[in-house]
Amino acid sequence: MLAVLQMELQHLPGFRDFYPEDRAWLNYIFECWRTTAANFGFAEYDGPTLESTDLYKKKSGEELKSQLFRFEDQGGRDVCLRPEMTPTLARLVAARERDFKKPIKWFSISPFFRFEKPQKGRLREFYQINCDLIGDNSLASDAELISLAINLLRGFGLTSRDFSVRLSNRNLWSDFLKRHDVPVDRTAEFLSIIDKLGREEETRLAQKLTAFNLTLDQIHSFLATPTDQLPGFEELFREFRWRGVEDFCELDLTIVRGLDYYSGLVFELFDRGRENRALGGGGRYDKLIEVISDGSVDLPAAGFAIGDVVLRNFLEELPHTRALAAERMVKRALRGYIVIASESQRSEAVKLATRLREAGISVDFPLEATKVGKQFQTAESLGTQYAVVVGQEWPQVRLKNLRTREESVVLEAELENNLKLEN
Amino acid sequence: MLAVLQMELQHLPGFRDFYPEDRAWLNYIFECWRTTAANFGFAEYDGPTLESTDLYKKKSGEELKSQLFRFEDQGGRDVCLRPEMTPTLARLVAARERDFKKPIKWFSISPFFRFEKPQKGRLREFYQINCDLIGDNSLASDAELISLAINLLRGFGLTSRDFSVRLSNRNLWSDFLKRHDVPVDRTAEFLSIIDKLGREEETRLAQKLTAFNLTLDQIHSFLATPTDQLPGFEELFREFRWRGVEDFCELDLTIVRGLDYYSGLVFELFDRGRENRALGGGGRYDKLIEVISDGSVDLPAAGFAIGDVVLRNFLEELPHTRALAAERMVKRALRGYIVIASESQRSEAVKLATRLREAGISVDFPLEATKVGKQFQTAESLGTQYAVVVGQEWPQVRLKNLRTREESVVLEAELENNLKLEN
Repeated sequence: MLAVLQMELQHLPGFRDFYPEDRAWLNYIFECWRTTAANFGFAEYDGPTLESTDLYKKKSGEELKSQLFRFEDQGGRDVCLRPEMTPTLARLVAARERDFKKPIKWFSISPFFRFEKPQKGRLREFYQINCDLIGDNSLASDAELISLAINLLRGFGLTSRDFSVRLSNRNLWSDFLKRHDVPVDRTAEFLSIIDKLGREEETRLAQKLTAFNLTLDQIHSFLATPTDQLPGFEELFREFRWRGVEDFCELDLTIVRGLDYYSGLVFELFDRGRENRALGGGGRYDKLIEVISDGSVDLPAAGFAIGDVVLRNFLEELPHTRALAAERMVKRALRGYIVIASESQRSEAVKLATRLREAGISVDFPLEATKVGKQFQTAESLGTQYAVVVGQEWPQVRLKNLRTREESVVLEAELENNLKLEN
Repeated sequence: MLAVLQMELQHLPGFRDFYPEDRAWLNYIFECWRTTAANFGFAEYDGPTLESTDLYKKKSGEELKSQLFRFEDQGGRDVCLRPEMTPTLARLVAARERDFKKPIKWFSISPFFRFEKPQKGRLREFYQINCDLIGDNSLASDAELISLAINLLRGFGLTSRDFSVRLSNRNLWSDFLKRHDVPVDRTAEFLSIIDKLGREEETRLAQKLTAFNLTLDQIHSFLATPTDQLPGFEELFREFRWRGVEDFCELDLTIVRGLDYYSGLVFELFDRGRENRALGGGGRYDKLIEVISDGSVDLPAAGFAIGDVVLRNFLEELPHTRALAAERMVKRALRGYIVIASESQRSEAVKLATRLREAGISVDFPLEATKVGKQFQTAESLGTQYAVVVGQEWPQVRLKNLRTREESVVLEAELENNLKLEN
């Protein structure tokens, strides 16, 4: 019976409940993202949680990912919980592209759904910030996006010692394949081998390469090409220097990204630590809007996404980012708890709470007669900064800073100034 | 072909795309809600978008609402897109109730899904703020919740001329039925008749009442009972006066709320205007947590929800709330656009943008060489407050306020102060 009950009180596997401490983390992450994206001139948009399955068929050429939450709705429509943002974005842009000056710089923060085997850092419902720059295919727009991605992580106190951006360009591999007489239609198959470099046994990879008449040595020699011999990278790194983010960026031709629609630039954000986790990534997808709109709108585009799950794990592990998060979240805690020491003053206490709340100060008080000691316990358990003791001395009240233990007696009319967030 | 294309570029019926102007509205509503709820000492939580269908079966006693987005996931589970928050909240509280001091005061802002016929104010995906107060069944907690509901709307500039709270108590009807010898198990059936008062023909209602041995006159005479003869209402209104919200509140015994799980207090927030729309509502559900937890946790509770769809329509219709929304949203527009008048200064312009963004000021600039006139057009179309013209005079720059048309020449090092939000 107990086992059944516990199961029934749980969320579905791979999904999450957000108790206040978890939702505070999410709010911290989202607010930091929103502020940085807005500072870069990106405007927030969003789409629906549910989309027609056709939208994803288009992108992947009828072959659908196996991990979709896909079903038939009551109206007989084939629908999906969105597994990613890019097709929705392409749909939005294609439908109203003339209404917006180019480049379009948009971001969104939304939940996504994939039926995967739940594990550390991978869930069935997760949040992502998606940032896209549409209608410009300059190196400056690539640099702008990568700089935004870096600053979305720097906002949490992460430095170039903590993470890096590994970047590449799929066109470099296209040129390489052309030089080695590999047909264009085998590019995807080839890139899936490059994607596994360092993660699969060399002998296995070498064997796969024979199908392309290529050796592992040829691959390694190409991977070692200096930046100044790769078209565009000198200019890109100059743009990074102007933006103060060059220390974060490194060339890594093994980065090819899984999704088929990427063209040109691709990049991934990596934890530099032992675990070497991917925190996010993206790239250029110049042809996707044309595909989604059946050829009616043709705009170059690039974008990236960063997820919340791996990021929160990362921020909780590093002492300096954990401390910064705690400091910022404390500011969101309840500001004042009104301790009612004398029930005859209840009406004054409630009116005081009402005034303070209307002045933008978060306060609470006991709804029923409660012992003073228990009221202080409640205040402490809520992480409150100040206790305000209302008793017979009204309109004088006792103000106690619950963190420093300092106490003073003030007039109730002065409380608003005392409780403002600057103190 | 065009019709097909247009259909494919659309969202599903009853769902919404949020282009930046729509997402700005949502952010305005959500931020205002978050601030007010936090000021009242409510902590934010959330649950998953998808829940096991069992969770909803429990609440409604195996009879499920027809408008669920319900399906079988790839793991063979019977799941639902959440149609409302209360069962999830009850699940969260029941699972960890000992970790939290009572009363638990929580709120959430989340999307919900119901397969309804889309119409004005009613969609298949919509957002709600849900506020709940758990572990206290005092009249003060009812007053606290209703006061929060009122202030969640006042935050948008709505006054007691614009909306009211109509409140009632289901126990009054239970007592009435007892006095008239109607069996308890027919309460729900009876309340569904009261729910239709004023919306269905009187002769029809009178006919339905005969099944209860009651007349319409008896109902109308009960509805006219003065507040001071109804237990608890005098005390409740005293609590409202302390909180300064008495002008918003009126007794209305015809309010019974549709959902079966309500006990005691019930209330609805109504537009006072011609359309008399419901903006939200809630009530007490003292037994629901016990039901959801199969009897393991028994806590009194009350809560309410306000939706985003009707609210935004309402705020856009009233001149004073529309103006306030516009004023607050303008503050979120881009602060500065750096006009690059001389390409030789591009690197300085990009570095300047980087410094300003790091100082928390939102700025943008052209990614490629662009005519000065066109750059100003872009700045205007983005609703930017200031244009900053970088040219041969560097480090002197021209600062133009695009709203007042005022111009001045300043040193680039002074820009940060000039562009701060206070100006």
